[in-house]
Amino acid sequence: MAAEWDSAVNMVHRGGEMLGVISFAASGALVAARKRLDLFGMAVLGCATALGGGIVRDLLIGRTPPAAFTNLTYLTASLITALILFFIAPSPRLTKGPLEVADAIGLGLFCVTGTVIADAAGLGAPTAALLGMTTAIGGGVLRDVLSGEVPLVLRPDQDLYAIPALFGATTTAVLLHLDLYQAWTGLLAAAGAVGFRLLSRRYRWHAPLARHARE
Amino acid sequence: MAAEWDSAVNMVHRGGEMLGVISFAASGALVAARKRLDLFGMAVLGCATALGGGIVRDLLIGRTPPAAFTNLTYLTASLITALILFFIAPSPRLTKGPLEVADAIGLGLFCVTGTVIADAAGLGAPTAALLGMTTAIGGGVLRDVLSGEVPLVLRPDQDLYAIPALFGATTTAVLLHLDLYQAWTGLLAAAGAVGFRLLSRRYRWHAPLARHARE
Amino acid sequence: MAAEWDSAVNMVHRGGEMLGVISFAASGALVAARKRLDLFGMAVLGCATALGGGIVRDLLIGRTPPAAFTNLTYLTASLITALILFFIAPSPRLTKGPLEVADAIGLGLFCVTGTVIADAAGLGAPTAALLGMTTAIGGGVLRDVLSGEVPLVLRPDQDLYAIPALFGATTTAVLLHLDLYQAWTGLLAAAGAVGFRLLSRRYRWHAPLARHARE
Repeated sequence: MAAEWDSAVNMVHRGGEMLGVISFAASGALVAARKRLDLFGMAVLGCATALGGGIVRDLLIGRTPPAAFTNLTYLTASLITALILFFIAPSPRLTKGPLEVADAIGLGLFCVTGTVIADAAGLGAPTAALLGMTTAIGGGVLRDVLSGEVPLVLRPDQDLYAIPALFGATTTAVLLHLDLYQAWTGLLAAAGAVGFRLLSRRYRWHAPLARHARE
Repeated sequence: MAAEWDSAVNMVHRGGEMLGVISFAASGALVAARKRLDLFGMAVLGCATALGGGIVRDLLIGRTPPAAFTNLTYLTASLITALILFFIAPSPRLTKGPLEVADAIGLGLFCVTGTVIADAAGLGAPTAALLGMTTAIGGGVLRDVLSGEVPLVLRPDQDLYAIPALFGATTTAVLLHLDLYQAWTGLLAAAGAVGFRLLSRRYRWHAPLARHARE
Repeated sequence: MAAEWDSAVNMVHRGGEMLGVISFAASGALVAARKRLDLFGMAVLGCATALGGGIVRDLLIGRTPPAAFTNLTYLTASLITALILFFIAPSPRLTKGPLEVADAIGLGLFCVTGTVIADAAGLGAPTAALLGMTTAIGGGVLRDVLSGEVPLVLRPDQDLYAIPALFGATTTAVLLHLDLYQAWTGLLAAAGAVGFRLLSRRYRWHAPLARHARE
């Protein structure tokens, strides 16, 4: 019974991560298309966005080669996503609504998974939380650096994105520290991050700008 | 006899790689000069272009310190190249013709060497091929990111560059997988990539742009 | 007596490094504020500037997780610095004078520490010196790449910055090679780099621009 429950929770987690990979890859491929990069550029930016955060995390904890290079499931999913978007331009209705929700789901799950992996590598709780956040936002930063932009997560005209990831990662680190982490408490932490992100989007919550930068 | 043949093939391989390092370093130093960076900037961009791909590959497979830092031959060659280009501006006739051929030779040999090194590190064939391509194009990406540009290999107005590298790397991975890799078959794979690249240049083959990005 | 002297020298070294971390973090946070990034952007750019050089060095020598993630002193100092600068805009008199001196002190000490760490990892003297310089300037490069600029250290309108770091790192590598490195000789090497940097600033020493880039 408990085992079945756990495996159901794990399936939700896996399914959510796959949703996240696809929406991250889509965001990279769409940025590439908007910048008029070619098919190869769409594939590279799609993969960098979907896999970049995990690759940076794995490099930082010394887990080489990074998981993205040994388990090719996510790489394949990213390539297929980029290929589909090469042929079909998604309508704004899709990119505004469902894709943003999928992106939030990916954000929430990656910050939890990233924290768990960093913790398993023997890092302390604060560091594990930082690396969990890095896992969730690193791909987007890589996408923006490669396309010659200041990373979106750093820009003040954006709704909160990194902070929900940090929230989910911190919650996970605390759960791990208190020995309360299980498949379902992890999923709750992810859900918290997803909800936080969607609320930030809905109500346009921004991080504050320094007063002296405002003038 | 076979040993002599092998060592001759190896010498061709080494010579070609050195040609490649020099032309990569030249491309970095010339970008730096065009962007009006100083002597130090020319040295840094030259080294980053010539060594960056191999450094990224070595980090990803956990081979630290990267070979570029322990065997200083290529670093020295890159620095000398940058220094020469500080004093002498090459005529466009040189940069258009011979330097582009040398660059193609470097591209072809680095994608093969990179794949072989990744394979020796125990990675599967598809991953080894990806890392082989990364070895060949990574330096140029680093050059462009450091000089504040969208990487050339991602731009649609460019002739195919990464695809020939991927072709050479994939061929090498297949050869390794089938246990057919030898010094001379590797050189053939490299020659294929070089030829592919030069044909792309000659006939201006481009990767396609998504139709919805064209308007 | 000798032990007391050594521990006094070490305290100076530590204090200087902390000064350097704070001034590096301040430079990152101030760039972020000038680019109108929000509080999160100021924190990220502050930390990247203060810790980036050491993180890159640790990745290159295979020391994972990087020291910046396991000893959180410098991370905390960087975050506090960014937070203070969020509330208080420093007067130009402070940023021009004392902060630049503190920055030079950080530069000088980091190039020495970086070289010592790379040497302890078993790298040869030239490589250790290169990594020492990377430690000192890497954070600033990361700051500039993340804020969408060509790295300051590569630009010709800047006073020498990387060269003093390379000078300090090379001196340290030579001291280590000759078995003459001690706490106080290391501090002398750092002082040399600091002095070199401050003189470059005072007398506007520039690296030369290639003649063909000048027209």
